[in-house]
Amino acid sequence: MVTISATTIQIISVLISILAFAYAAWLFMWVKRQPSSNARIEQVGALIRDGARTFLRKEYLVLLRFAIVAGIFIFIFLPSPIWNGNIGANLIMVIAYFAGTIFSAIAGKIGIEVATIANIKSAEAAKKGIKLSFMAGFRGGAVMGMAVVGASLMGVALVYLLTQDGTALLGFSFGASSLALFAKAGGGIFTKTADISADLTGKVELGIPEDDPRNPAVIADNVGDNVGDVAGMGADLFDSNVASMAAALVMASALDKTVGGTTYVGMVFCYAALGLLASIIGVMCARIGKNGNPTNALNSSTYITTAIYTVLTAIATAVLGYEWRIWGACIVGLLVGVVIGIATDYFTDDSKKPVHFVAHASKSGPAFTILSGMSYGLLSVLPAMIGIGISALAAYKLCEPINPALSTDFAMFGISMAAVGMLSIVGMIISNDAYGPIVDNARGLAEMGNLGDEVLEITDQLDSAGNTVKAVTKGFSIAAAGLTVIALLGAFMSEVNTAAAEMGVAGLTGFDILNPMVFFGLLVGAAIPAVFSAMLMLGVDRNAQRMVAEIHRQFNEIVGLREGKADPEYNKCIDIATAGAIRELVPAGLVAIIATLCVGFIGGVQAIGGFLTGNIVSGLLLALLMSNAGGLWDNAKKYVESGHEGGKNSEAHKAAVVGDTVGDPFKDTAGPSLNTQITVVSLVASLMSTLFLAFSIF
Amino acid sequence: MVTISATTIQIISVLISILAFAYAAWLFMWVKRQPSSNARIEQVGALIRDGARTFLRKEYLVLLRFAIVAGIFIFIFLPSPIWNGNIGANLIMVIAYFAGTIFSAIAGKIGIEVATIANIKSAEAAKKGIKLSFMAGFRGGAVMGMAVVGASLMGVALVYLLTQDGTALLGFSFGASSLALFAKAGGGIFTKTADISADLTGKVELGIPEDDPRNPAVIADNVGDNVGDVAGMGADLFDSNVASMAAALVMASALDKTVGGTTYVGMVFCYAALGLLASIIGVMCARIGKNGNPTNALNSSTYITTAIYTVLTAIATAVLGYEWRIWGACIVGLLVGVVIGIATDYFTDDSKKPVHFVAHASKSGPAFTILSGMSYGLLSVLPAMIGIGISALAAYKLCEPINPALSTDFAMFGISMAAVGMLSIVGMIISNDAYGPIVDNARGLAEMGNLGDEVLEITDQLDSAGNTVKAVTKGFSIAAAGLTVIALLGAFMSEVNTAAAEMGVAGLTGFDILNPMVFFGLLVGAAIPAVFSAMLMLGVDRNAQRMVAEIHRQFNEIVGLREGKADPEYNKCIDIATAGAIRELVPAGLVAIIATLCVGFIGGVQAIGGFLTGNIVSGLLLALLMSNAGGLWDNAKKYVESGHEGGKNSEAHKAAVVGDTVGDPFKDTAGPSLNTQITVVSLVASLMSTLFLAFSIF
Repeated sequence: MVTISATTIQIISVLISILAFAYAAWLFMWVKRQPSSNARIEQVGALIRDGARTFLRKEYLVLLRFAIVAGIFIFIFLPSPIWNGNIGANLIMVIAYFAGTIFSAIAGKIGIEVATIANIKSAEAAKKGIKLSFMAGFRGGAVMGMAVVGASLMGVALVYLLTQDGTALLGFSFGASSLALFAKAGGGIFTKTADISADLTGKVELGIPEDDPRNPAVIADNVGDNVGDVAGMGADLFDSNVASMAAALVMASALDKTVGGTTYVGMVFCYAALGLLASIIGVMCARIGKNGNPTNALNSSTYITTAIYTVLTAIATAVLGYEWRIWGACIVGLLVGVVIGIATDYFTDDSKKPVHFVAHASKSGPAFTILSGMSYGLLSVLPAMIGIGISALAAYKLCEPINPALSTDFAMFGISMAAVGMLSIVGMIISNDAYGPIVDNARGLAEMGNLGDEVLEITDQLDSAGNTVKAVTKGFSIAAAGLTVIALLGAFMSEVNTAAAEMGVAGLTGFDILNPMVFFGLLVGAAIPAVFSAMLMLGVDRNAQRMVAEIHRQFNEIVGLREGKADPEYNKCIDIATAGAIRELVPAGLVAIIATLCVGFIGGVQAIGGFLTGNIVSGLLLALLMSNAGGLWDNAKKYVESGHEGGKNSEAHKAAVVGDTVGDPFKDTAGPSLNTQITVVSLVASLMSTLFLAFSIF
Repeated sequence: MVTISATTIQIISVLISILAFAYAAWLFMWVKRQPSSNARIEQVGALIRDGARTFLRKEYLVLLRFAIVAGIFIFIFLPSPIWNGNIGANLIMVIAYFAGTIFSAIAGKIGIEVATIANIKSAEAAKKGIKLSFMAGFRGGAVMGMAVVGASLMGVALVYLLTQDGTALLGFSFGASSLALFAKAGGGIFTKTADISADLTGKVELGIPEDDPRNPAVIADNVGDNVGDVAGMGADLFDSNVASMAAALVMASALDKTVGGTTYVGMVFCYAALGLLASIIGVMCARIGKNGNPTNALNSSTYITTAIYTVLTAIATAVLGYEWRIWGACIVGLLVGVVIGIATDYFTDDSKKPVHFVAHASKSGPAFTILSGMSYGLLSVLPAMIGIGISALAAYKLCEPINPALSTDFAMFGISMAAVGMLSIVGMIISNDAYGPIVDNARGLAEMGNLGDEVLEITDQLDSAGNTVKAVTKGFSIAAAGLTVIALLGAFMSEVNTAAAEMGVAGLTGFDILNPMVFFGLLVGAAIPAVFSAMLMLGVDRNAQRMVAEIHRQFNEIVGLREGKADPEYNKCIDIATAGAIRELVPAGLVAIIATLCVGFIGGVQAIGGFLTGNIVSGLLLALLMSNAGGLWDNAKKYVESGHEGGKNSEAHKAAVVGDTVGDPFKDTAGPSLNTQITVVSLVASLMSTLFLAFSIF
């Protein structure tokens, strides 16, 4: 048995993060080195890149304002009001918060930069065969994966190295989450606004093709794919990853204080760093043969990463003498994550019954598309809920006996380690997920650049693999968020008890459902995700109306636009999508945060315990329903388009298109934003615990 | 102060029930005495009546089989396994169970009989003006209201008089619930199967009008309105009403045992009996002027009943020396119920923003109808959840200080009394609710009987009032079910603790969310309403396919049917709707019950506590979403049909029809069945508490 101090492990974590960045840089250069010779593709690609940059700049400017306001608030009130005298702690908290936002923003920026290059390269490479085209798409995605996980591990390690304080980590995590809330929901509103507006005015009103450059919204639409799917998803998983480590470290540092030593903090960093290492190796191993199957290539690299992680952590546990039970919790989380991903796949895969049923039902009209898709979406909730429940239960029971005197503390720590385990392979997951929009864009570029049918066949195959894998990664990321927020519930209690001890009042032993405050919080908390997702969807609706008006204006005022003799003002549409997205997002995000503050200041920490629980339960339910129903409708439409149930332009196809349009904001705006919403609410509750204890009405 | 024993109050309750039955009989005779002279209306009316009877007979036959199997199971295992020696208790439980099913079945049967007469009378009476037509519809509905509440109060009082045992009441309540599960979900599948099939084949394929007698499904469609809306809704509120009294009495008898005396049991019966009395007076007061507004007439009789109840119970509380705090809990429940009903109205009323927004969005196509309706449906969850939370919290806090040594017991009893208070005016609510389908049918009959435009104008006005009031009563009944199951959670704990005391093991003090068993149960419990409603909706889908095939067969095989020279075989369609409804219902109901048993036998009573909570939270969420979105779509369609956003046959209208079709199984099959599902699951848990304590794996 070897003993290494937690500080050493933190330094090693930083080094592995640097390794991940170096590898990301190598991948980035590799992608950039790939040839691109088609002027048309280059031109459209540049427009998309500029649009994405415009959006990010605007978004980050708004975020900066929000961050400054939030930062002032944090400085005054957190972790405890400034008039209590400890200004230093408040300053650290503010710095940690800003660091969280900055790290997250940088990871998103890197992802966008590479994605808007890799799409061009992948399209071009398809001329030489599937192998190079796949590698361009996958390695482009992997840059994002490495950057996100590298940034999260490095950020957490640096903050902890400098502060040695779990609460500061919650501040860092809140910074990451508040950015993710903007990036994911804002990106989601942006992309669906542009998508719907472009389709309505272009395809429906004018009868011009989907990617016709005369349409002022067409670049905004392509930009949306990047900012919504690449940057948004990256910010979301950055946020989950940081939150899971923060929750584990809050409990680990409390355990270390009680037991003595730094074992548990070290363990969290060790397992997280090995996850990044496993992901690096997994990305390196990703290969596809000349005529290989891209879906298999993506899935097998996920399984390889999982296996490598299991072996590496087992070796570390043996060598460093860690508790095998905690290792077990970690691996349970990982395996359940994979299993949930596979179960999710069943409901959205176009070779399985649900997609066939919905496609067949579409023959009877759009109402049946919606009803059958909603039904399967509702059914799809069950396996994930059971899976999350089992992993939490197993982790708890595994770690409970470690120390009889601290059974609950170890048990809750076990749950947080299950979340860390589930998120350990997140570098690989992001790589797979970001691959999707890149090859999707590549397919569009190949079509616009007239690269020929053979190339389109290849890009179609790559795109289809992206869709299949996306379902798995979406299920995975919801499950990971679920387990993370359960762990945050434990972190919340830990924070409350620390504060209660300092204030000399009684702490919490739990949250009793039969306590009416808890139950009240539970009911209100359960309503928040419903309100949040409704506001986002109504936001898309209103924003699309604004953009449609602008498109009409351009067609009326710009002479020659209709004939293709003048260029449209693409940036005006991008501005509208951007401004609208951020305007519509702010109220929804604020409602969630303000509701948390209201419940906390009215009902106190008991009500907040119920509130978080209700929020988790209904957030998971709606996120799973919306993501899976949306994915199912999307694939049912594609299934019909591929010639089934009447094929393109049949009645079934028209109905399936309605399903797909409903599914778009379900799966790309509201559904995935709920992940972030439940995390943000949990973090706000933990950060505010002292204030809730001191100032609540009841 | 006057002292009256609980037994006396129970006898008085039985007498008031008899009074209600007598009044129902008088109303029934009054309706029957109204003239009907139109042969065409008589003929169609008779077909509908026969169809409804056929359905009820078949449904009750299936239920009989289910009841026998359940009865055998109950006899062997409940309240404790028969080999423990106490056969008498098991026999009482079985008898109570059967009594519950029989009382509920009779109430449903009475409702159907009068509704299928009152529709004819109301159509005919419209020739003489709105006044008599309204009275025929309302008094027809009131027969149902009086019968349901009379039967529930009489049943509960008789069972308690004979057994003096709260647990036996749970058996009675379970009997009522299992019938309600069939009646509501089965009726819901029946009515939507027929509705969709008739529309698809008649209006869409053949282009014949909605109520064309050549369509083999047309009678099934009208039958569905009666069995779904009248009998199903009656069974649902019978079930909620019985369950709320049972929950209150379980806790009251436990309190009486501890404190001594029979005060609290007496109080439950007193308040419940006064509710029935207030409803009788309210129904008597319902009047409409010659040119009066039917909506105002219905709403004002609800407010009159509420006021009368408040005064009557205040007098009783003063005279009998009851606790004012408990009276307060009761009134809080009542007022919150009314407020929730009004809030629900906002989301479905065609003079309010949500309906206008959805109608306007429909201009952009059906996807926007669905998205905007879903969004408002999600928003509508908030006021009801907050209302239920506040009433539970207020009732708890009001009753907690009554006895410091028994604060939790009194507090939980307070919640159950809030549920009793909310349900006190249920006789009035059912009268208003059953009025809807009667005048809806009357409108159709008036059209088929060619009674002229003036009559149609009157029936339209009555129908529109029915729709408006329906939204209020639906919100009310979901809220009542919510509060009832919260009270049942208290009853469950009371049952567990009684059993634990007998077994000499530790009882429960609550359900801690951080207990992993509770959390596991919470997640699984939250998934069950999703699965249950998905199964019902898929059931409607499959069943409609069977019926469409049968309609096609009849048009192909029956010579002269298409030309109107031969009659279709209406009963075949009714048989298919009936058989299919029951076949599709059984798996859904069983999944809910079996999931409860699995969680209980695996995770024990802690897991069940979480399971019930998750089930309540997600059940309320989905029920509110589905009922309100469905009602909103229905009214948005009607709003467009009345000439807005392009009017009939516009693009907006086509889109609104899609919304309405999606909303049909939402609001009439899945949504309202969830009420019953959460009640059944709560009752199963309470009844099985001893077995879960004794035989669970963990």
